[in-house]
Amino acid sequence: MTAAVMTKTQDLAAEMRAIGLKARDAAAVLARLPAAAKTAALKAAASELRKGTGEILAANECDMAEAAEKGVVGAMLDRLKLDEKRIEGIAKGLDDVAALPDPVGEIMASWTRPNGLLIERVRVPLGVIGIIYEARPNVTGDAGGLCIRSGNAAILRGGSESFHSSTAIVAALKRGIVAAGLPEASVQLVPTRDRAAVGHMLTMSDLIDIIVPRGGKSLIERVQRESRIPVIAHLEGLCHTYVDGAADLEKARAITLNAKMRRVGVCGATETLLVDRAVAKTHLPPILADLRAASCELRGDAETRALDPQVLPATEEDWATEYLDAILSVKVVDGVAGAIRHVNHYGSHHTDAIVTEDQAAAERFLDEVDSAIVLHNSSTQFADGAEFGMGAEIGISTGRLPPRGPVGAEQLTSYKYRVRGTGQVRP
Amino acid sequence: MTAAVMTKTQDLAAEMRAIGLKARDAAAVLARLPAAAKTAALKAAASELRKGTGEILAANECDMAEAAEKGVVGAMLDRLKLDEKRIEGIAKGLDDVAALPDPVGEIMASWTRPNGLLIERVRVPLGVIGIIYEARPNVTGDAGGLCIRSGNAAILRGGSESFHSSTAIVAALKRGIVAAGLPEASVQLVPTRDRAAVGHMLTMSDLIDIIVPRGGKSLIERVQRESRIPVIAHLEGLCHTYVDGAADLEKARAITLNAKMRRVGVCGATETLLVDRAVAKTHLPPILADLRAASCELRGDAETRALDPQVLPATEEDWATEYLDAILSVKVVDGVAGAIRHVNHYGSHHTDAIVTEDQAAAERFLDEVDSAIVLHNSSTQFADGAEFGMGAEIGISTGRLPPRGPVGAEQLTSYKYRVRGTGQVRP
Repeated sequence: MTAAVMTKTQDLAAEMRAIGLKARDAAAVLARLPAAAKTAALKAAASELRKGTGEILAANECDMAEAAEKGVVGAMLDRLKLDEKRIEGIAKGLDDVAALPDPVGEIMASWTRPNGLLIERVRVPLGVIGIIYEARPNVTGDAGGLCIRSGNAAILRGGSESFHSSTAIVAALKRGIVAAGLPEASVQLVPTRDRAAVGHMLTMSDLIDIIVPRGGKSLIERVQRESRIPVIAHLEGLCHTYVDGAADLEKARAITLNAKMRRVGVCGATETLLVDRAVAKTHLPPILADLRAASCELRGDAETRALDPQVLPATEEDWATEYLDAILSVKVVDGVAGAIRHVNHYGSHHTDAIVTEDQAAAERFLDEVDSAIVLHNSSTQFADGAEFGMGAEIGISTGRLPPRGPVGAEQLTSYKYRVRGTGQVRP
Repeated sequence: MTAAVMTKTQDLAAEMRAIGLKARDAAAVLARLPAAAKTAALKAAASELRKGTGEILAANECDMAEAAEKGVVGAMLDRLKLDEKRIEGIAKGLDDVAALPDPVGEIMASWTRPNGLLIERVRVPLGVIGIIYEARPNVTGDAGGLCIRSGNAAILRGGSESFHSSTAIVAALKRGIVAAGLPEASVQLVPTRDRAAVGHMLTMSDLIDIIVPRGGKSLIERVQRESRIPVIAHLEGLCHTYVDGAADLEKARAITLNAKMRRVGVCGATETLLVDRAVAKTHLPPILADLRAASCELRGDAETRALDPQVLPATEEDWATEYLDAILSVKVVDGVAGAIRHVNHYGSHHTDAIVTEDQAAAERFLDEVDSAIVLHNSSTQFADGAEFGMGAEIGISTGRLPPRGPVGAEQLTSYKYRVRGTGQVRP
């Protein structure tokens, strides 16, 4: 290393630790704020965001110009772009989070021991949350808002392509939360595009309590590999819809079409359709016709192709692929047992649905499919915090430890035990 | 690497994966067992353990002889030793766990959305739990029992000095659980003393869901550093008792003596006494006299030593040391604010207590001390799952994410969402 590089490296490490220390101090204040103070701050932040629309759009133009120069195109460029409607969407999201019940301080359980000790399990914030995401400026608002609602300090690290937009959004949020009397460091954006900053975040285990990566598979995998801090990870959504032998055909058609095609790029989109051999002949052709009419590419196993020769051949890789596109893999299986086996083998433990009028088959699927969300006679696209009534979410956790499934404000909390005695000692 | 070493390494990797695969299959069966089947298996395991006392004692003699040869002495040798009473203690522990309510299947919350979807959050096992511990044969029984109760498969890796004892204990457990119809692989012991086996466990993230290290600081730190799997860690118990200016002297004396000296080697033992300057002159001398009479070594700051010159000088290191011995560090602080600052700075977020008759001071301490367990007017030695009414525990989690505090059967579970619809699709 040259001396200049070493100095830069040391500077960044020191800068990241300074951010962590400020976050730790802010978290101590946030943890003890009454609900009303946090609500006021969220509303003030929404208001400042609306007032700052002009400067946020100007910052976004810088990002868009730089991205165009770098040759960024398609969905990524679309996610990066802000307009007045999208900024209003972010502000509305903060207002929605402001309206959520405050989870902190809730007495989750309490009991008295024979020796008279009163034990309470009380909900507390997690502390400092590090959120690492890609170039989606709207996540800056959502993540900051959910952290404030749950009494956590946030350190945000957005994708470098959205740096100017995120900086402008965080500036507006800070104006709101400071005006409402909250610490300025309640929400901080990492003020550099240097990728090494992420490495520092992942090892500052004394200053950051939880890491939430939000983005593509390679980002999540890097974070899971490198982090010395517990991770709430949303790995991928390889979701299935299974049409059982006892499925109502009209429900199966409507649910499958919605589950695949309502929005193909969301994590709750179905990627594989499984159909019970018992009804493949009657149910598969109309379902596939609906999908084809909606311009969905179909890739099937031999039995599916025997019923519909236009279906392209699926390879082993297809069963393990989250397309996030208008593509569906299709397989004929041996009843609910075959469906469960396939889902548990190839799925990502995210969201899976059964369509059936047979209650026993439904219960078996709901019980045995090992996923965060299992649905009966409804679309996998309901996998969403807002659809669950949580107001907003920071992602869907596909891990085993809680929080599992949609992660809203309540899921960004922990608990402690308060024990009240009158002089008890242990015999 | 020589060819022989390489073969051995590959063999171990394959052997560990085979254990993981068997555990994964067992977990799928365990997750769906009714409570009664698990209860029967635990009782049968307790019974087989009692019947197997002779062979377990013989195995323990092998361990004791090998340990003596290696020069193991003191507390470690004592923890390794089994006798009829200790084996009865392990069997009784299994009976106690059998009597606990079954956490699996509990509907933790349910609500209906405006579109008619019924959402249920239902408790499920974690899956496969890897438990890595030191040479304490009793942990083999406790850990295996708690995993069965919570519907998880267990892979146990005990300290190499207790290898024969743990092998005999697991053999007895297996006889019981197999007789009760549970899969033999519900509880498996890693069948080698090779330390490389731990490294394999920590990276088998597709086959092990959670790692629970139980033991000394170096073990926990190794696990936290190397694990690619989420860890429920019990780091250390640097617990404090704070005697406030409004403390009742008799309560303060009884609680401090108990918190330090009831058992000095447990994680809930107080390691540092903090005393409010307002009552140092009146309260500190009798409290220190009690401790000295109980043969506790005292190390204090300058103010403490000014009041009691027999107290040895404490260094900065003392405030950060978990003695697990008859040693106490003592410091005079500025009221409850000073106590909170000290605890949050030097403590391990485990268990801390305030002694006071001032309700406002108590509430402030309970609120602001950032520990898994905070107590008012009671001994820190109550930091124990059984004392909390959880029946048994696998440790006290000092992490921030749940589970935090005592980890019993309920804390070894997660949840999933079951969503019941009638054909709903997302608009």
